Amino acid sequence: MRRSQYFLPTLKENPAEAQIVSHRLMLRAGMIRQSSAGIYSWLPLGLRVLKRIEQVVREEQNAAGAMEVLMPTIQPAELWRESGRYEDYGAEMLRIRDRHEREMLYGPTNEEQITEIFRASARSYRDLPRMMYHIQWKFRDEVRPRFGVMRGREFLMKDNYSFDVDYAGAKRSYNKMFVSYLRTFARMGLKAIPMAADSGPIGGDMSHEFQILASTGESRIYCDKRLLEFDALSSEVDYDEDLQPVVDRWTGPYAATDDKHDPAKCPVAKGDLIEARGIEVGHIFYFGTKYSKPLNCAVSGPNGELAPVEMGSYGIGVSRLAGAIIEASHDDAGIVWPEAVAPFKVGLVNLRAGDGACDSACAELYGQLRAKGVEVLLDDRQESAGAKFAEMDLIGLPWQLIVGPRGLAQGKVEIKERRTGAREELSREAAFARLAG
Amino acid sequence: MRRSQYFLPTLKENPAEAQIVSHRLMLRAGMIRQSSAGIYSWLPLGLRVLKRIEQVVREEQNAAGAMEVLMPTIQPAELWRESGRYEDYGAEMLRIRDRHEREMLYGPTNEEQITEIFRASARSYRDLPRMMYHIQWKFRDEVRPRFGVMRGREFLMKDNYSFDVDYAGAKRSYNKMFVSYLRTFARMGLKAIPMAADSGPIGGDMSHEFQILASTGESRIYCDKRLLEFDALSSEVDYDEDLQPVVDRWTGPYAATDDKHDPAKCPVAKGDLIEARGIEVGHIFYFGTKYSKPLNCAVSGPNGELAPVEMGSYGIGVSRLAGAIIEASHDDAGIVWPEAVAPFKVGLVNLRAGDGACDSACAELYGQLRAKGVEVLLDDRQESAGAKFAEMDLIGLPWQLIVGPRGLAQGKVEIKERRTGAREELSREAAFARLAG
Repeated sequence: MRRSQYFLPTLKENPAEAQIVSHRLMLRAGMIRQSSAGIYSWLPLGLRVLKRIEQVVREEQNAAGAMEVLMPTIQPAELWRESGRYEDYGAEMLRIRDRHEREMLYGPTNEEQITEIFRASARSYRDLPRMMYHIQWKFRDEVRPRFGVMRGREFLMKDNYSFDVDYAGAKRSYNKMFVSYLRTFARMGLKAIPMAADSGPIGGDMSHEFQILASTGESRIYCDKRLLEFDALSSEVDYDEDLQPVVDRWTGPYAATDDKHDPAKCPVAKGDLIEARGIEVGHIFYFGTKYSKPLNCAVSGPNGELAPVEMGSYGIGVSRLAGAIIEASHDDAGIVWPEAVAPFKVGLVNLRAGDGACDSACAELYGQLRAKGVEVLLDDRQESAGAKFAEMDLIGLPWQLIVGPRGLAQGKVEIKERRTGAREELSREAAFARLAG
Repeated sequence: MRRSQYFLPTLKENPAEAQIVSHRLMLRAGMIRQSSAGIYSWLPLGLRVLKRIEQVVREEQNAAGAMEVLMPTIQPAELWRESGRYEDYGAEMLRIRDRHEREMLYGPTNEEQITEIFRASARSYRDLPRMMYHIQWKFRDEVRPRFGVMRGREFLMKDNYSFDVDYAGAKRSYNKMFVSYLRTFARMGLKAIPMAADSGPIGGDMSHEFQILASTGESRIYCDKRLLEFDALSSEVDYDEDLQPVVDRWTGPYAATDDKHDPAKCPVAKGDLIEARGIEVGHIFYFGTKYSKPLNCAVSGPNGELAPVEMGSYGIGVSRLAGAIIEASHDDAGIVWPEAVAPFKVGLVNLRAGDGACDSACAELYGQLRAKGVEVLLDDRQESAGAKFAEMDLIGLPWQLIVGPRGLAQGKVEIKERRTGAREELSREAAFARLAG
């Protein structure tokens, strides 16, 4: 993409309304624009990030054996009356009446709807297990939406639902999602720690939230420092195998959010305890027959007896992650995108747009990199070098490739790694090889 | 994907509520499930088709130089008051009050919103031209939703908006979309005819709807038979060149919908006139300053004077296309997917699941094809051959690869092309080479 033709309305000043760094940087980098309180449009740069996050989530869901569906945003109230949640849900549910005065709502979540879909065709234990997810916009009418996309009203979420014949099956599904979540966040360059969470009236230990570490995170967390050394991507996962050992390894060491942490009871020696800040980006939850019973979603077992299916739900805040990743990865100059979710891999800076040699070197590198499948933003504008560097740092592309007349005269270009700030002069061919690799 | 693990709730009987063939077949093939009137969930098979359609649309929008954004589904009423459409729009607009009693609406279209986004940063003629599109769910509260996804209430649409400094620029943008639409529909295996449409109070000739030919189509159309011979994909397009000759070529021959066709005035000789049925799947429209003026979206020209920008909008019914393609491509046995939008390319039928030789031949072919990037649905269930063939024909995958014990004993498998019904026995290697190519 050529910067001169790109819609990238960056801001020089910090917007007054933004209280946290990700909100400030997303507005300044021209990623989003507020439509109304807690509701945002995703501009070209922001949408690229959102799509890349979505794709990592999708790939890891599919790898774990979940099937993608897409439920609508608008649901009928009757469905929520079946579970008893229509009256209970409170003011966060956006309630709507259509032209025929039928009661509808903008889905804040989809347990009822997926259960209705499944019950319509599932008859026998042979139709299980199944996991189905969708990546769809939800609405929660927060009293005070704030923090940009971190706590919006209209937000994009991946929610997966598992259907099993018994508790043992449900635990297998739960473990698949547990492992899949570790991999999902690790692929995005995030350090995610699973923490035991409330399982409510269901009880048991099958509820975990995933907190990613970020110095500006919203909540205080405590964990055994060994957890920070675990690497979720160090080996391949076979989702058909028993994953309990992996789950046990990650849930063995101590980890607790502020509200659960009791220094008096913490088993970790002081030197081994990490105190940090975190952001919740995922939650997995086993809820048994909580919805299948009232919605009458049952299958016959091998003995022919009907029994309600065992369910769990597994959420990832996709739009929230765009903000959370910035909270975890930025510096004073702007965003520092992990390569897996960066909107472009390379920012190609033409230091003297209009100069024949610079223009043709840039056009050539741009074409060559794109031919290799590398996403490039070429800053071809007639702006000062300072303005271009500042913008590149702000939008946080992993690599800057800088082409100027002085370097070119010696056959050289410069590469800057955004994360470290390290700069290197090298030949065009060497630069191309490095970035195309 | 293994059929035994796939969520594919096909129906043997025709659902009573479905009046048109695409609706019947989408329900029978387990592609969609109704949530409430005019609102559907997309099940795994249906979502695969929807995503493929979406991707073809996206690629052709990007190729024409449009940038993808994503505007939210819920919009503030104030924005529509600026254009005067909030009161005018009528009962099709789904109006909502949030918990603070603020008036909101579920967007039926996005002219106001994109104009607001553009005006916030555009200052000078140098910030133009721009085209920005999104692929987002819309809501129109139809009195009587029907025909499945062909006329739903919640529907997926691609809408693009162009911003230019003057009429000449707007015409260039319009022509880009004209050509891009021809290519988009042709890539999906559809014969699309552009037809002059009402341009309303704006006047002029810059409004076209695109009708695809389908024997069960909703409207009657008339056109010069030469139009059916044109091939939109026969040559590459350079969107930087003048596209007027291409537009002229396609708009030269006579084409009219029923309401515009006047036999007395039709210039085409009777033998050259095609009378057919069509389905509208796209509409492109130049509307000048209709929104930019009231919303005060202006830029300064080279002479420094402020002028409202010239705009156009360009829509494609993405979810509607899933139905429209079926209307255009089916037979008595079921759907016949064009390869470009098929949910899987190959249906691999194991005629005797449980038989060692059949199972291992299928597993091997399945693995080999997937390794080549070919999407395969492997029917590995213990069902009768008849049931498997009927389902494969119903769901309409372009190729069936049939593996049975008798053929295998002679080193043979069978390939069936869904569209023609042509069958061929050949070696496993030859079948693999054919389908992986």
